Amino acid sequence: MSEYKRLHRTLVHQGKITTTYTDRMLLPNGREADWDFIGHHGAAAMVAENEEGKILMVTQYRNALERYTLEIPAGGINPEESMMDAAVREVEEETGYQVENVEHLVDIYTTVAFCNEKIGIYYGKATKKKKQQLDEDEFVEVKAYELTELLEMIQTGKIQDSKTISGILAYYNFVKKKQ
Amino acid sequence: MSEYKRLHRTLVHQGKITTTYTDRMLLPNGREADWDFIGHHGAAAMVAENEEGKILMVTQYRNALERYTLEIPAGGINPEESMMDAAVREVEEETGYQVENVEHLVDIYTTVAFCNEKIGIYYGKATKKKKQQLDEDEFVEVKAYELTELLEMIQTGKIQDSKTISGILAYYNFVKKKQ
Repeated sequence: MSEYKRLHRTLVHQGKITTTYTDRMLLPNGREADWDFIGHHGAAAMVAENEEGKILMVTQYRNALERYTLEIPAGGINPEESMMDAAVREVEEETGYQVENVEHLVDIYTTVAFCNEKIGIYYGKATKKKKQQLDEDEFVEVKAYELTELLEMIQTGKIQDSKTISGILAYYNFVKKKQ
Repeated sequence: MSEYKRLHRTLVHQGKITTTYTDRMLLPNGREADWDFIGHHGAAAMVAENEEGKILMVTQYRNALERYTLEIPAGGINPEESMMDAAVREVEEETGYQVENVEHLVDIYTTVAFCNEKIGIYYGKATKKKKQQLDEDEFVEVKAYELTELLEMIQTGKIQDSKTISGILAYYNFVKKKQ
């Protein structure tokens, strides 16, 4: 393998959930180059199946895409919280459902070319319904879908969020087919 | 649906492949908040099957993760180039293989919470082997894998790149099973 070395990391901007840096890299060919690096503290997501066998999905406004998107419940990780606990808490907050029998599904790195964001994706059974407890800048609509509907929505491009595609397809191939 | 409105977008930093902004948002509850926005021009990727029925994969160093990762071939889109042409070109540059019978598979948004990066993922047949033509800061190792090996590497966490997980699982479920 060729060897890369980071010579410097320069902080450019501290955002709300991301930090922008410029990394000065020494390349295997001996030359130097500046590469972008966006730091992120990671997130957690959950494929939560309700008692009817449907998957809980949330619709929310995504400013980055300037539209609403259909996604599995997900959110950031609080200080000293495990990824699994964060995933369970986010489902409760966003959908009102408690989740039990939680298992790890896959971890994804969302965009490896410039960002270290890792999303831990879990699956579990959504049981007792409580009440949505959203953050003050969060407005989310909840609906449950059959897994077959979600597969079709991925195939036809109605779902395009990478954590949702990865989570739903991994759940279908690695969990449901084994049951 | 609740209404969100972007009041201002402030340029913070122009990077090499990303642009960092702060967006001032008017939330449905009437309050204002600053949200991060990372602009990106998009990328293209390819699930390329060779004449032995194996999938071409590349290993490269990812500074953001500080390690080597196993991925499907991918890269940025040149000005006035279509996503499909970019995917074909990236496979040729990174692996040396020409790709034919190219079809669209899925588009993914890598990380919708703060970034507009879209990756168009295609599939095709890798045929004639030519020669790798890498960018001057690009060093890539190429190897072909059985689809079943790749599925197992996703399930066991050896592959964690979101475009690769989305692309391989979509190819398995939406293309191979229909053949």
